[in-house]
Amino acid sequence: MRGAVLYGPRDVRFEEREAPKVIESTDAVIRISATCVCGSDLWPYRGIQPVTQPTPMGHEYCGIVEDVGRAVTSVKPGQFVIGSFFASDNTCPNCRAGYQSSCQRKEFVGTAQAGRLRVPLADGTLVATPAVPSDDLIPSLLTLSDVMGTGWFAAEAANVKPGTTVAVVGDGAVGLLGVLSASQRGAERIIAMSRHESRQRLAREFGATDIVTERGDEGVARIKELTKGVGADAVLECVGTQESMMQAMRSTRPGGSVGYVGVPHGVELNGEELFYAHVRLHGGPAPVRRFLPELIDLVWNRKINPGKVFDLTLPLDQVAEGYRAMDERRAIKTLLRP
Amino acid sequence: MRGAVLYGPRDVRFEEREAPKVIESTDAVIRISATCVCGSDLWPYRGIQPVTQPTPMGHEYCGIVEDVGRAVTSVKPGQFVIGSFFASDNTCPNCRAGYQSSCQRKEFVGTAQAGRLRVPLADGTLVATPAVPSDDLIPSLLTLSDVMGTGWFAAEAANVKPGTTVAVVGDGAVGLLGVLSASQRGAERIIAMSRHESRQRLAREFGATDIVTERGDEGVARIKELTKGVGADAVLECVGTQESMMQAMRSTRPGGSVGYVGVPHGVELNGEELFYAHVRLHGGPAPVRRFLPELIDLVWNRKINPGKVFDLTLPLDQVAEGYRAMDERRAIKTLLRP
Repeated sequence: MRGAVLYGPRDVRFEEREAPKVIESTDAVIRISATCVCGSDLWPYRGIQPVTQPTPMGHEYCGIVEDVGRAVTSVKPGQFVIGSFFASDNTCPNCRAGYQSSCQRKEFVGTAQAGRLRVPLADGTLVATPAVPSDDLIPSLLTLSDVMGTGWFAAEAANVKPGTTVAVVGDGAVGLLGVLSASQRGAERIIAMSRHESRQRLAREFGATDIVTERGDEGVARIKELTKGVGADAVLECVGTQESMMQAMRSTRPGGSVGYVGVPHGVELNGEELFYAHVRLHGGPAPVRRFLPELIDLVWNRKINPGKVFDLTLPLDQVAEGYRAMDERRAIKTLLRP
Repeated sequence: MRGAVLYGPRDVRFEEREAPKVIESTDAVIRISATCVCGSDLWPYRGIQPVTQPTPMGHEYCGIVEDVGRAVTSVKPGQFVIGSFFASDNTCPNCRAGYQSSCQRKEFVGTAQAGRLRVPLADGTLVATPAVPSDDLIPSLLTLSDVMGTGWFAAEAANVKPGTTVAVVGDGAVGLLGVLSASQRGAERIIAMSRHESRQRLAREFGATDIVTERGDEGVARIKELTKGVGADAVLECVGTQESMMQAMRSTRPGGSVGYVGVPHGVELNGEELFYAHVRLHGGPAPVRRFLPELIDLVWNRKINPGKVFDLTLPLDQVAEGYRAMDERRAIKTLLRP
């Protein structure tokens, strides 16, 4: 079986890897229908996160179950399934509290850019769709594995409710799906922060009511201007840099919330500033498993179409071009078909 | 009129100050019935927060209205009133959202260790009790001006609800009243972190079910042990140091909340640790004005007795001894009577 392997900065190769098989009795092996490149894959791809050895890549996946261990009872061969990038048992106290991405037995699922994938803790991790989906639904179902679940969690963590004013920092796929999530949750006003025309267009399609092109302090000033000097009720931080985190915090009204899902790289928060800002902070790796049933339902019934974030589709063997296109911001997100 | 003035580290003097009078039409002048020394007064007293000029002290107060400006309509001379350490108009968007300590017109009320006090924005800041209270209620009513409202906010910010497991970091007056607040809000289990016997006793009286004497990593390990490895649902951070903040964060379960009210001194939060901790963070200067009606009611009807945190009562002219006793941890909190 061939799959993507990252060797070092900007060096992704599509090469022979060991075929996955059931190892633990709780495993499943699935045949990948679609996988994709995540914004967070770009951190190691760009060398910002060091790569010490050849590393198989990919943590977003959906596909057909091929084989299951003898302890697996909730999914069976032939079913179409979606799972989170963190395998979880869905029974430990953290899972029961809705934080499956902090499962006491969590395992990162990191080899999905390939034809087949071993998924540990299959009962707790995978959710089957009502039937094998038609082909046009697959991109949207794939987003539920991470990017849409992450945008959804950002909106939830930021307490987006009907009537609220929301600002979204970051116009990558997560930010854009944060806009869609805020809209689904009834936000009255959604300010997307973006300076790229194609992304602005998609943001508007997903429900953004305002676009702010300024960044940093100027971006904060614009948000304040748009909210009568008060700040937004909810701000979704979908980048993970010091600048984006500060922009998010300073755009939030006292008593408002920042939902942060961008994996932090070098972010430090000053306790005193946070104290006097009076904001709520919540975030982390999205517990997408919690949201899968609800989001599958929304996609299945064609209420939402998050698959629109894929503006480039390539055969899996062109995975290297998929990374390049995202790195150079020629593509928002690359879908890969084995 | 005489009042307390801080000249430099450990140099508090009781000396002649200008008598306060109504300056703005929205002011009130009150005759102080009782005031006290706050844990946060110890930061400048100890020289950790520099004092650049002789500084009048005191921000906790209750007393009888003596005079009001012509625009004041909600309180009148003769009434017994309590106010927050931040004057607020109680009408701006931040006040309406319940964050009066981020009022767009907020003013710090910092000269309360004296016989009389000017309170700006009296209509928005002061709340009158149903009648002039009997003397024995005054200590508890005084706590509502800051320390009890702050403990209450910590519990609210940490989402303390019926049935939750709560840990309280800090056994000063705020921490102890955090215990009382958590108990009032129906917490099932309240773990007080304290190594001082008299404070442990008061914590138990206020509702603590467990005492943990360990600190830092050992303290965290004890909390984990007491919560089956998961962590507390809600942790109240009532100190403001790097160690206490880390202790609070690391004692919280994924999806749980830290309510932090200790004024941060040199606290820095690592974004990555916060991200993977999955905790919620909320806090800041307590909007005690929001809680005054409810808390006055609880004290007035003798449902709570937060005044027990005062274990030293002195005449105001012995204010310097009041600071010393707290600095040396001989007293939890000093009440001062003009």
